[in-house]
Amino acid sequence: MYWEDPPKDREAAVRTLAMPKDTNGLGDIFGGWIMSHADVAGAILAYRRAAGRVVTVAVNDVKFLRPVFVGDVVSFYCDVAKVGNSSITVEITIFSERNDGGVARHVRVATASITYVHIDLDGRPRPVPQGEDQKRPRKDPDGRPS
Amino acid sequence: MYWEDPPKDREAAVRTLAMPKDTNGLGDIFGGWIMSHADVAGAILAYRRAAGRVVTVAVNDVKFLRPVFVGDVVSFYCDVAKVGNSSITVEITIFSERNDGGVARHVRVATASITYVHIDLDGRPRPVPQGEDQKRPRKDPDGRPS
Amino acid sequence: MYWEDPPKDREAAVRTLAMPKDTNGLGDIFGGWIMSHADVAGAILAYRRAAGRVVTVAVNDVKFLRPVFVGDVVSFYCDVAKVGNSSITVEITIFSERNDGGVARHVRVATASITYVHIDLDGRPRPVPQGEDQKRPRKDPDGRPS
Amino acid sequence: MYWEDPPKDREAAVRTLAMPKDTNGLGDIFGGWIMSHADVAGAILAYRRAAGRVVTVAVNDVKFLRPVFVGDVVSFYCDVAKVGNSSITVEITIFSERNDGGVARHVRVATASITYVHIDLDGRPRPVPQGEDQKRPRKDPDGRPS
Amino acid sequence: MYWEDPPKDREAAVRTLAMPKDTNGLGDIFGGWIMSHADVAGAILAYRRAAGRVVTVAVNDVKFLRPVFVGDVVSFYCDVAKVGNSSITVEITIFSERNDGGVARHVRVATASITYVHIDLDGRPRPVPQGEDQKRPRKDPDGRPS
Amino acid sequence: MYWEDPPKDREAAVRTLAMPKDTNGLGDIFGGWIMSHADVAGAILAYRRAAGRVVTVAVNDVKFLRPVFVGDVVSFYCDVAKVGNSSITVEITIFSERNDGGVARHVRVATASITYVHIDLDGRPRPVPQGEDQKRPRKDPDGRPS
Repeated sequence: MYWEDPPKDREAAVRTLAMPKDTNGLGDIFGGWIMSHADVAGAILAYRRAAGRVVTVAVNDVKFLRPVFVGDVVSFYCDVAKVGNSSITVEITIFSERNDGGVARHVRVATASITYVHIDLDGRPRPVPQGEDQKRPRKDPDGRPS
Repeated sequence: MYWEDPPKDREAAVRTLAMPKDTNGLGDIFGGWIMSHADVAGAILAYRRAAGRVVTVAVNDVKFLRPVFVGDVVSFYCDVAKVGNSSITVEITIFSERNDGGVARHVRVATASITYVHIDLDGRPRPVPQGEDQKRPRKDPDGRPS
Repeated sequence: MYWEDPPKDREAAVRTLAMPKDTNGLGDIFGGWIMSHADVAGAILAYRRAAGRVVTVAVNDVKFLRPVFVGDVVSFYCDVAKVGNSSITVEITIFSERNDGGVARHVRVATASITYVHIDLDGRPRPVPQGEDQKRPRKDPDGRPS
Repeated sequence: MYWEDPPKDREAAVRTLAMPKDTNGLGDIFGGWIMSHADVAGAILAYRRAAGRVVTVAVNDVKFLRPVFVGDVVSFYCDVAKVGNSSITVEITIFSERNDGGVARHVRVATASITYVHIDLDGRPRPVPQGEDQKRPRKDPDGRPS
Repeated sequence: MYWEDPPKDREAAVRTLAMPKDTNGLGDIFGGWIMSHADVAGAILAYRRAAGRVVTVAVNDVKFLRPVFVGDVVSFYCDVAKVGNSSITVEITIFSERNDGGVARHVRVATASITYVHIDLDGRPRPVPQGEDQKRPRKDPDGRPS
Repeated sequence: MYWEDPPKDREAAVRTLAMPKDTNGLGDIFGGWIMSHADVAGAILAYRRAAGRVVTVAVNDVKFLRPVFVGDVVSFYCDVAKVGNSSITVEITIFSERNDGGVARHVRVATASITYVHIDLDGRPRPVPQGEDQKRPRKDPDGRPS
């Protein structure tokens, strides 16, 4: 799931400050910077769920909603959206914290859905440990119930 | 469209060498590095088609097919998949050139579909110049004819 | 204050993954990488407390307790230790999350005390807004009550 | 050989976008960035010609003709200029693609001549496979027939 | 010891140019950049004194005295302040060379005291070779004679 | 001029530690890293001689003599080789300091000759202030007396 506001029940998987070196030619933060951090954030959660090594196999959907500026504190909140036999799909909601005349505002800047596969030491897919999250009917990233 | 093999009728929008600083903890090239370069590659083509400034608004789909290794020459080939009023969707096929006992092999490592919007100097969407590519029936990124 | 274990009552100011590009010649994560992120983490909290721009004026103390490895998820937890007229001292406790046979372990890897000064647009010190934290007797970084 | 205009008969060995992080204190793209990419571009061609590992042994000549700006798409075109027993000299012509009111202009920004040596796994020079390019009389980088 | 002016009797352990990619959101050079280079500079001297591998164990004190600007040539001068059984404390004085209408000015921008420990190949502390500097009474970083 | 050993009569213009992020696919330090630092080192000296802004116009010659390894302290020593009306050619000798069983060894790893031009604020060449170094007969980078 994606959040409208920063969730209270969990911490950000990644949180960092956007710096001048991360800008594109327009002076905003480069989209590739956001995607890189989203990939890492989702991998951190997938790794915990798999209790082992994962690799990124697909980015299902990323939406850039608002620009990110230099000086923003950018937080990546993650939720396990779907668990298959060896795959884990994570939904990531990305918020910028901006200072607006001394008042911090949290602005939702992007959402992303990324799928990881649990692998063994030789790089072959292996089953994710069974969990409650495999039993719930969930919608997959294409909007069809799985 | 995506290509099975490197296309003959166009040059790569981006081509670069994968270096040790681009690796993840497994020793392979970090997925975020690939996504960053794909975003730049697609933006180069969208910028030409729009004849002006564009911003990334969505990553519709990225598939990581095979790992990318240090020393691979990685090429990003782009194709305009769909042009809307102010949006341009680019499909990007990514090939690694690897040396296999003195013989270069081109391996398809990833595909990506990214949508850009043409903007004016104030960041507001503006129409893309009319072109032949708006008239052709094309499949949109979800596989439905548009 | 510094924590023995990751605190429950607040989120990390910065959290990120340690990557191969951040290593030193020994293969561990470079101390400068840890200090850079600690500086950013403390600045984020000082900025909120000051409700405006801050600059780093002193690093009072950093202790490196254990090495940080590639693949660690590193979290920087911050606490306002002391507020002066225009200065804010932040204490930062740094934890690595490591996977140990499928079980995540939180390891305290470093602590840091950093002082920031609130400045105006011309770079001159300006008073920090009054707060409860200025009234509490606290120990300063040299261990003497202030 | 160097080209006046981007060649039609080959692809760029390296092509990438110049970003703000690549600037020098004057706001132009840093000369070291251009040289680094030229070194990589030439190595890619030398590697193909040698059908194996190469190291850079000399930069014979680099001329910076015009500044490179943030937002330029920079292409590095390479030509094998001379093949010795174990050495390969590559000439690299570097073009910036700039947008000039909606019209892309290709501007020649630099030329470079770099010599590589083919090495074995122990780092010792080894002969380059025989080829047609060793028989043609060619001009060496100093302008004398070799 | 720290110097008021660049010392004549030794070379800088590290000297480099501050570049745009090293700035923070205020346009000055990021404090973490300065700390990273100070850590490296002190490690170079500690490594020579130990005649072997060292790791950073503590930053005792860093004072940021003046901002560092893009284009400054920044020099890190080091002095062994104290040698313990297996530890070496290095004091680092950091100067910026700025051009002021054609006249170079050396400005002291920061000081730092950092402690390293000499380790063996397994990462265990080992004794530093005996030297004259262990016999002199010196002030320790807290200002007390040791 | 180039030096056989590190010169006693001047300091290095740039000195820094070679880190893992600077390696190429062979595990040695990437040639582009060395060229980038040489460009900066020469620019620092040219800037002092011109008493103002300079740009790199040509790399006349770089020779890579020995590989640079992770952990090497790399020093760039510069000498003004020739001063023209608005140009300054700097020769740069590059030494690695390596630890060889507790004994530091200085190894000459590369030499470079780079030409800069003094420019005004609009980027146009302007005369270098007159100096003794313009009167001496010197050899130019192509080996002919100038």
